[in-house]
Amino acid sequence: MSAAALEFWFEFASSYSYPAAMRIERIAHARGVPVVWRPFLLGPIFAAQGWRDSPFNIYPVKGQYMWRDLERVCAKEGVALRRPTRFPRSGLLAARVASAAADEPWLAEFVRAVYRANFAEDREISEPEVIGAVLKSLGVAPTIWLGRAQEAAMKDRVRQQTEAAQARGIFGAPSFVVGEELFWGNDRLEDALDWYLHRR
Amino acid sequence: MSAAALEFWFEFASSYSYPAAMRIERIAHARGVPVVWRPFLLGPIFAAQGWRDSPFNIYPVKGQYMWRDLERVCAKEGVALRRPTRFPRSGLLAARVASAAADEPWLAEFVRAVYRANFAEDREISEPEVIGAVLKSLGVAPTIWLGRAQEAAMKDRVRQQTEAAQARGIFGAPSFVVGEELFWGNDRLEDALDWYLHRR
Repeated sequence: MSAAALEFWFEFASSYSYPAAMRIERIAHARGVPVVWRPFLLGPIFAAQGWRDSPFNIYPVKGQYMWRDLERVCAKEGVALRRPTRFPRSGLLAARVASAAADEPWLAEFVRAVYRANFAEDREISEPEVIGAVLKSLGVAPTIWLGRAQEAAMKDRVRQQTEAAQARGIFGAPSFVVGEELFWGNDRLEDALDWYLHRR
Repeated sequence: MSAAALEFWFEFASSYSYPAAMRIERIAHARGVPVVWRPFLLGPIFAAQGWRDSPFNIYPVKGQYMWRDLERVCAKEGVALRRPTRFPRSGLLAARVASAAADEPWLAEFVRAVYRANFAEDREISEPEVIGAVLKSLGVAPTIWLGRAQEAAMKDRVRQQTEAAQARGIFGAPSFVVGEELFWGNDRLEDALDWYLHRR
């Protein structure tokens, strides 16, 4: 089974997607592995499992562990973390912008900047003002891309991506796909890269 | 915060506890870290979260992923795996024997042999005949230890260990505890060892 790239499936609301998003391009590039960025939404996937909130909120003991573990993971990676005052924040708008910008050279930097806004700067990424400020900081015209994000085609694209994730057996984020092989969790990134290089 | 040892909290029914149990002694010994084996039961902890079965059965998509991921993890570690025809199997009897044998030199080998019986040999570890055969293979008298496992003190000990796990914020297995620090999952063993050596 040959895979053209490592697919990085992420959700802007997802806490463990944050360190994955911050490190994937650097690590994959160093090993010569191309990455395709696949934003999707966990909400509909969690809803299908009967959850109307993050499992980290539904199961507080697990949530408490996650925040401590995330501190350790981020410290190890040298990634800044400030626990958001609201969790999870809707990643819908950011996912639509990322889908619209799929072929733009600033896509990866946009994704990282949104994650930083959410998990290091405690900013409300569901608000157009915040996403607009992120776009502006990248030298990109906010009005154009916020406009594109609201087009029906972009709304469809995010919905289709989410359906594709579900069809693929994805149940959490971050997930990595190499051909037929699925890897779940920031701590499986290295395994996914190994798989791409040796088994695809 | 000083920790005398790395505590290894495991449940004989737990799939990811299997590779952890098979490798922990070797890896910890190589790094000079003492290990304390802490058998406990996930059932009461899951029940407190509203689950009456393994989450890998309740959420089949997650279960399907787990079995594939476990294949990869075991292959990487050189650990044999045959998917059990029944999952989860009750680890209660084995946990009682392990509690009774807490100070015996054959404890670690007993734990590994029970995991192999469950996850490599597809044997019914809830049955006294199977645990008896495991004990016998270690050169230990089955009747004595199966007898001790049924003593009220041993039943209490497993119950107390499970309550202690819950009090400690443990919500899954395997878990590793170093002083105040909790690590969850086979893939956190190296982090737990690092913590013991550098941060305790």
